[in-house]
Amino acid sequence: MSGSELCFLTLAGQASLVRRREVSPVEVLASVLRQIERLDRRVKAYITVMSDSALAAAQAAEHEIAQGHYRGPLHGLPLALKDLIHTEGVRTTAGSKIMRDFIPGEDATAVTRLKQAGAVILGKTNMHEFAYGSTNVNPHYGTVRNPWNDQVLPGGSSGGSAAAVAASMCSAALGSDTGGSIRMPAAFCGITGFKPTYGRVSRHGVVPCAWSMDHVGPLAKTAEDAALVLAAIAGWDPKDPASSREPVQDYMAQLEQDVAGLRVGVLREYTVDPVMPEVEAAFRRALGVLRELGLKVEEISIPETKYAVGASNAILLTEAASYHEERLRSRAGDYGEDVRSRLELGLFVSATDYVKAQRVRRLLIEKFQNVLRRYEAIVCATEPITAPGFDQEVILFDGLAEPRSQALVRHLRLFSLIGLPAVSLLCGFASDGLPIGLQIAAAPFADGRVLQIAAAYQKSAPWHLQAPPAAKSQS
Amino acid sequence: MSGSELCFLTLAGQASLVRRREVSPVEVLASVLRQIERLDRRVKAYITVMSDSALAAAQAAEHEIAQGHYRGPLHGLPLALKDLIHTEGVRTTAGSKIMRDFIPGEDATAVTRLKQAGAVILGKTNMHEFAYGSTNVNPHYGTVRNPWNDQVLPGGSSGGSAAAVAASMCSAALGSDTGGSIRMPAAFCGITGFKPTYGRVSRHGVVPCAWSMDHVGPLAKTAEDAALVLAAIAGWDPKDPASSREPVQDYMAQLEQDVAGLRVGVLREYTVDPVMPEVEAAFRRALGVLRELGLKVEEISIPETKYAVGASNAILLTEAASYHEERLRSRAGDYGEDVRSRLELGLFVSATDYVKAQRVRRLLIEKFQNVLRRYEAIVCATEPITAPGFDQEVILFDGLAEPRSQALVRHLRLFSLIGLPAVSLLCGFASDGLPIGLQIAAAPFADGRVLQIAAAYQKSAPWHLQAPPAAKSQS
Repeated sequence: MSGSELCFLTLAGQASLVRRREVSPVEVLASVLRQIERLDRRVKAYITVMSDSALAAAQAAEHEIAQGHYRGPLHGLPLALKDLIHTEGVRTTAGSKIMRDFIPGEDATAVTRLKQAGAVILGKTNMHEFAYGSTNVNPHYGTVRNPWNDQVLPGGSSGGSAAAVAASMCSAALGSDTGGSIRMPAAFCGITGFKPTYGRVSRHGVVPCAWSMDHVGPLAKTAEDAALVLAAIAGWDPKDPASSREPVQDYMAQLEQDVAGLRVGVLREYTVDPVMPEVEAAFRRALGVLRELGLKVEEISIPETKYAVGASNAILLTEAASYHEERLRSRAGDYGEDVRSRLELGLFVSATDYVKAQRVRRLLIEKFQNVLRRYEAIVCATEPITAPGFDQEVILFDGLAEPRSQALVRHLRLFSLIGLPAVSLLCGFASDGLPIGLQIAAAPFADGRVLQIAAAYQKSAPWHLQAPPAAKSQS
Repeated sequence: MSGSELCFLTLAGQASLVRRREVSPVEVLASVLRQIERLDRRVKAYITVMSDSALAAAQAAEHEIAQGHYRGPLHGLPLALKDLIHTEGVRTTAGSKIMRDFIPGEDATAVTRLKQAGAVILGKTNMHEFAYGSTNVNPHYGTVRNPWNDQVLPGGSSGGSAAAVAASMCSAALGSDTGGSIRMPAAFCGITGFKPTYGRVSRHGVVPCAWSMDHVGPLAKTAEDAALVLAAIAGWDPKDPASSREPVQDYMAQLEQDVAGLRVGVLREYTVDPVMPEVEAAFRRALGVLRELGLKVEEISIPETKYAVGASNAILLTEAASYHEERLRSRAGDYGEDVRSRLELGLFVSATDYVKAQRVRRLLIEKFQNVLRRYEAIVCATEPITAPGFDQEVILFDGLAEPRSQALVRHLRLFSLIGLPAVSLLCGFASDGLPIGLQIAAAPFADGRVLQIAAAYQKSAPWHLQAPPAAKSQS
């Protein structure tokens, strides 16, 4: 393998070469940096590339490994961080003008843990301003482009992380998911994006969007890669009040287990709602693959699911407005127009609507807890459509015109609202070449179960590793 | 002792006679019913007196005890329930016109437990409509009068329960406390009112006021009596989502323990704020008594305490409005004017204010958790004043005019907001003969500690059992 191809390997593949000392972390970094140089002027996945410190870290890792101190699969591999994750001494903008010059004094807990695992922190990825939107059209740091087609949305708000992974401009990345912000760009960019159980990964040192729905998680090429990253960052952190003391599972061990016999519920509410025919077809094929793997696939129905978007809207609008309230008064002009108007809208949510939303959340938690006693996982299409164009504000389904902002979150918000672990992974392509995402969710703290099923699916569909043509059409 | 004097005994005193079969439950009931007949036309403590079913229950208890089946200290003794506590087959009005004809199909969990302990349910007490106010001026069921002086407030919203206990019209009573509704009437009526730790006593079958602040607890003549009732009703209930699985302490055993050496913090924020001089003096004397008992009394300060009233207002207004929202639209005219306008106000609280209040609550919980690692209890005056007159809408302190509604809750809301167990007990009288209350609070689930200190105080101040002259001036 030539050095320039190293970046196209999975994180696990790179790790295997590094562990056997067949490749140095410095070579992996060089391959990834070449990719950034070649593509990122157009893709704009990064706000900050830390070439120098990354090179120093890769050299240090090379040295450590040469001396026989191999820390594990992340050792020496270049990871990217969504730019709302604090990095000591490296500016962290949250994609905003307001935080343009903010340089944190300490790393986020997740970053500390990645560094302990030996990871090389390569850069800070572009995002929707303050993680409060899904287009990744960023008025301050440029528009993130989808590596599969630069005329369509990458999805957001972790669009920079997703694009960086899809275009092999890092080995894996961290993102955050408040209302779908990991899973949507993962689906639109054809990669694997995993939102862990609420409380599983510390948010200490991560700029909040809506605290009762904020999650940090990995975006990666495969479920196995996501599991490798998750294993490094999961676990209790006293600095995050919502962090759970639930013991961390052995995710890698669970990935080895057979999935045959597991019961999977297909959420009826997300199959009878308007879905693009090609998405529907890809989803049905994916269910076929799961059946071939021995999973028992059955339809389930929880009618109250329909309240998830409304309830999550009230909570998201309120908590985001609350976090920004003072700056919204003092520096309104420094916000992008879309983010500012959404924040201002949040000031007008009534407290009774907010508590009604919290009651809906409690109800949904109970309903899904019950269902998840009988089913090991729930599956649905991540998105009802493939990535829409930047200017496509309305989505046309057969007989229905739906605002894009609503269509994009329709299958995502539920799992944000009730905190279940959920992954999106590539399950096919539409005729225009755009990726289609499959979403798998499970009970709280069954994060390993989600990744196990995703990994089993990916083993039987090796084409899922397909890279965007533009990202490979080089050399 | 003549039969007519039985009602003036404490619950523990009555229980001792019943246990030894020196007195029959039927005689206790007769004594209490005579007191009701004599006084309640004026006091209006009861909405419903269940004479017939109470007599049947007292006879059944008499029979059981005669046969040697003594269930414990509540066996055969007549208890009153605030009329928002569901009683199977007996109407439960919540003091409202709207629920005038509501007859529950089952008992509240607390009632089931009282009945299992052998208690006789005597009646349903008057209250501020929907527990949403503190005057107990009830436009539907009449104004509750303070047994010490019928021109002053009994305090509320559990004013009927407090007046019934103070006037010996029951052996003890249950009330509910959302923002002080047990402790305020206990202070104004010169009895012992205990708000348990949030989650300690089930609210299943209790009409909500503001669910995150609602507590059910006893009003009684002494801390010992309160402990006897608490022991019967405390404990986990799967039917109340906020119910705690924390094991129930042996409250009676704890009452026997020596209090010497316990550290008590005097909350500075409630001694430097405006307090009536006679209340101040009684409070200082009470601290002297605690010192004589061997407690270490020190001043503590938690400046954030000042946010408790504002935060609790936002939460109370919101949750109450949320619970009533639909009826407020369809039956606005059936609410009393004060309750309706307060509920309507709640519709205008913003969601950002509500979540800000929840953040203040979290902050206060942490601050007090820290302090309660060093102090076994916190003490303050329950109320800065004695019971004001019905028309006294403004309280005049030296140099300050304060709205009554604010003055009355100033020392109460903190413990409602952060869920700490807190008792109010009589600690003296003002020159006009009105009772003054001492408040003692402790760490979550240290309910026994609160009652232990209160009981020790009461042992050294036997005058605390003084009854209102009007209640005794008979025969």
